Amino acid sequence: MTVTAEPRQIYLDNNATTSCALDVVAEMLPFFTEQYGNPSSIHAIGAGVAPSIHTARQRLQALLGAAHDTEIVFTSGGTESDTTAILSALRSLPERREIITSAVEHHAVLSVCEYLAKNEGYTVHVIPVDNQGRLDVKAYEKVLSDKVALVSIMWANNETGTIFPVETLAQMAKAFGILVHTDAVQAVGKIPMRLSNSAIDMLSLSGHKIHGPKGIGALYLKRGVKFRPLFRGGHQERGRRAGTENTAGIVGLGKAAEIAQSGMIDENTRVRNLRDRLERELVARIPNAIITGDPEQRLPNTTTIAFEFVEGEAILMMLSRAGIAASSGSACTSGSLEPSHVMRAMDIPFTAAHGATRFSLSRVNTDADIDRVIEVLPGIIDRLRAMSPYWSAAGAPAAFQPAYS
Amino acid sequence: MTVTAEPRQIYLDNNATTSCALDVVAEMLPFFTEQYGNPSSIHAIGAGVAPSIHTARQRLQALLGAAHDTEIVFTSGGTESDTTAILSALRSLPERREIITSAVEHHAVLSVCEYLAKNEGYTVHVIPVDNQGRLDVKAYEKVLSDKVALVSIMWANNETGTIFPVETLAQMAKAFGILVHTDAVQAVGKIPMRLSNSAIDMLSLSGHKIHGPKGIGALYLKRGVKFRPLFRGGHQERGRRAGTENTAGIVGLGKAAEIAQSGMIDENTRVRNLRDRLERELVARIPNAIITGDPEQRLPNTTTIAFEFVEGEAILMMLSRAGIAASSGSACTSGSLEPSHVMRAMDIPFTAAHGATRFSLSRVNTDADIDRVIEVLPGIIDRLRAMSPYWSAAGAPAAFQPAYS
Repeated sequence: MTVTAEPRQIYLDNNATTSCALDVVAEMLPFFTEQYGNPSSIHAIGAGVAPSIHTARQRLQALLGAAHDTEIVFTSGGTESDTTAILSALRSLPERREIITSAVEHHAVLSVCEYLAKNEGYTVHVIPVDNQGRLDVKAYEKVLSDKVALVSIMWANNETGTIFPVETLAQMAKAFGILVHTDAVQAVGKIPMRLSNSAIDMLSLSGHKIHGPKGIGALYLKRGVKFRPLFRGGHQERGRRAGTENTAGIVGLGKAAEIAQSGMIDENTRVRNLRDRLERELVARIPNAIITGDPEQRLPNTTTIAFEFVEGEAILMMLSRAGIAASSGSACTSGSLEPSHVMRAMDIPFTAAHGATRFSLSRVNTDADIDRVIEVLPGIIDRLRAMSPYWSAAGAPAAFQPAYS
Repeated sequence: MTVTAEPRQIYLDNNATTSCALDVVAEMLPFFTEQYGNPSSIHAIGAGVAPSIHTARQRLQALLGAAHDTEIVFTSGGTESDTTAILSALRSLPERREIITSAVEHHAVLSVCEYLAKNEGYTVHVIPVDNQGRLDVKAYEKVLSDKVALVSIMWANNETGTIFPVETLAQMAKAFGILVHTDAVQAVGKIPMRLSNSAIDMLSLSGHKIHGPKGIGALYLKRGVKFRPLFRGGHQERGRRAGTENTAGIVGLGKAAEIAQSGMIDENTRVRNLRDRLERELVARIPNAIITGDPEQRLPNTTTIAFEFVEGEAILMMLSRAGIAASSGSACTSGSLEPSHVMRAMDIPFTAAHGATRFSLSRVNTDADIDRVIEVLPGIIDRLRAMSPYWSAAGAPAAFQPAYS
């Protein structure tokens, strides 16, 4: 039984999920069939596993720049971390009945907030963004008060890569005794962090976004922050998350964190340059293409380009046939025919939002990958626009040419 | 990189966790590095994963004898399944304010019920068991009413292996419109099930108890049963459990289910005979040893033997040094010096409950394993009793010999 990488495909959907690094799989393997014990057991087969979990915790601590390894609580992934953090904050401060979040959060946060508004009577302040995806900090400031239990605002957006000023937002919230959570599933491993000097109380991360396995994640929980567990029963994770430890997953996540940390410079130089070149060349070759998101504060690996007068889904299908994997918005909402809530929150024109296509790179991408997209995509957009009733044969948007005058 | 089994150790702690079957690991491996896509993605790398998840769902359906594969919802394990089921039932029937459970449930159920009693004002009826671990069905019947939202009673006990008459209990509850959940983490894969003909609404199971991976489990959810998800956000699992699918884990659990089904006869003949021989020989060689649990209705793989006037923890340490892994009660509560809540609920005498030692077998155990325990354990008990102030040098319990008269 051997582990091999598959024949080269061009995978530019790393914000949806990543391939597991070979070194990650190699570290995980013994925990299936050799070191398979339950770490809570007294006997050698179980107890021998605990040091490996400890190492994984320290690797995550290092990646996050956290003060203590015990601030890392392993979970089953980003959604569990988000749910745990939100519910914990509300149960810890039951007298406060307001929540602040943003219009462009992942549904793992927005759906929980909507549920709480509808079923438990919480007031949820949804802070808008501008057309570059930047948070309206004035609107945020206005709703801060000691009635607010929780701020949950993402570190970086999964669709546009826009980075929010979470540290500033957290400090502003702290003045009111508000608990601060950030969904950093897309930011962790891509940009440096130092949580030991931060006002952030809780942070969610996911293994499979950083070349670790699926089904494992973590919640950073600052020492001293009030906490109520979501899963009760066993004493695992110091009573903060009951359930037999996913040892292979934890070890894999730890290794992925270590690799991400050592690859941080590559991510912010070579990968960023690949992304920038992709954007530059596509916009030069394809008319009516809009780069979305904050041009300055953006993850190094992400671009969403809105191609006017074409359907994103059609672009993805044709790219897929050419061996290129990209996406339109979040994988979690695929199948929907509406533009994503992120594009709508940014007020991207309807005719462009439908053609929004996300390319999310990672350290496994190469110059050749980018060359291939630049070679293939302009033709795809041309063909689709030729079929579009909104796009004239002249190659300019119908809306700008009064066709029947 | 190759997968190998470790050099033979005698592992008799399969109710805590199991080694992952080599065939399970083999089926999982491609999903780390080749078929790593997000099953929700439109492109080929993602969408290609969906059929494998479907196969896993069907394999679990077959193992449980469920009517529909869509009745299987993948979760991160037994604790998540239990928590989801309990909270779903209470949120689905909010006007009902009572819960029925048993005194010997796993803490993943008991702790949630205790929390709900304390923080949300629920009345929790904890049904006692007799000294063979059998549920007091009369007491159960007495508290059934249309005020009860949920019955959560385990299929089989993790310490004694005692099997509860869950089907009868479920039918009794249905007459009152009560939602019925069973924690079947220990029963699934060990005894046959046919949920298509059952009154059970929800059932929890865990991958790592049946030679599958850790960090994956499932909730059986009968079609038509009211349900409220614990994790919201993505549309995964038909909106019943948001979060990127743990594809490798799901595929591994599916394979483990298939293997468990084909090994059901072996489990109930050869493994049962191994367990029976272990019990018989140990009781014949060690005085004052009490087999706990229901002698008739018991899992084929489990025995907990209470050795009077010795400490369970000391037994386990000495067994571990001899290369034998066993346990005292649940791994989730190890470290506690008190006898387990199960032993206490059964009213096992204090002097015996402290020496309760669980041997839980699986299909990987052999005659040689059992021979070795029979060879080693009597000497260990002898040595420990020789050190015990409660046990006279004569080899009979001090309590029966008035030593200072």
